[in-house]
Amino acid sequence: MLYYDYKNFQQDTNKLITQVQEFQPESIVAVARGGLTLAHCMAEGLELRELQSLRTELYDKTTKREKFTICNSCSFDGVSRVLVVDDIADSGETLQNVMQTLQELHPEVIFKSATLFYKKTSCYQPTYWVNEAKEWIEFFWESDFTTQN
Amino acid sequence: MLYYDYKNFQQDTNKLITQVQEFQPESIVAVARGGLTLAHCMAEGLELRELQSLRTELYDKTTKREKFTICNSCSFDGVSRVLVVDDIADSGETLQNVMQTLQELHPEVIFKSATLFYKKTSCYQPTYWVNEAKEWIEFFWESDFTTQN
Repeated sequence: MLYYDYKNFQQDTNKLITQVQEFQPESIVAVARGGLTLAHCMAEGLELRELQSLRTELYDKTTKREKFTICNSCSFDGVSRVLVVDDIADSGETLQNVMQTLQELHPEVIFKSATLFYKKTSCYQPTYWVNEAKEWIEFFWESDFTTQN
Repeated sequence: MLYYDYKNFQQDTNKLITQVQEFQPESIVAVARGGLTLAHCMAEGLELRELQSLRTELYDKTTKREKFTICNSCSFDGVSRVLVVDDIADSGETLQNVMQTLQELHPEVIFKSATLFYKKTSCYQPTYWVNEAKEWIEFFWESDFTTQN
């Protein structure tokens, strides 16, 4: 297990910001929850005000079937290049589904993706990524905050 | 000017998590961009998966009038207590407008608000806040990330 602290995050996020600049994104979509802090910090670094988030659900309570749903609608008025941001492409399922669904809903927009970590066994490879994930990553936002105070 | 670093943020966010527990929020709305990292870390600490974001615009380019717009629609199906999260209530205008608009759109939902900083001259006082802002705050997400690498 790798505890991924804020200092590592800061360094890697700045690397990712440098990488994505060639794409010149006009808007960022954060995949909640994991991608939110990263998306926020990238938007600040890239000086992008347009930041939306979406949340996915893979399990449908009613039908008991596995189903992919995007819970928030995104709008991209006048925007042609959108960066989708998540913390990690692990199984890759979430990001693959998000990219496919967004592209179908907004065929006029070019979507690229960025993550801090990418696992080689992932079914989806992000356009931009910084580290290969070789063990379980515990991000600081998952362990530094608790109700036990 | 106060540089507000990650360590301060971690401590204060945990204080805020403790404060908001009495409300037992079921869903979080982040005011983008400023409230995103805070909302993410609070949602992790509170173990809440439901996190949405909204973005506001105070200036209407077409009519040249000041106008308040919420750019993303939120949905609160089956949810009755929602926490609206932003980094600071400075003038208070954004948060006041967000709270009022959300309440009008969703009269059945109870909305409360939480910020890290509150300025005593703000026109809106958040339900929960940690520090009084007495000088300009530079949050780490505003200064730790840049394209100049």
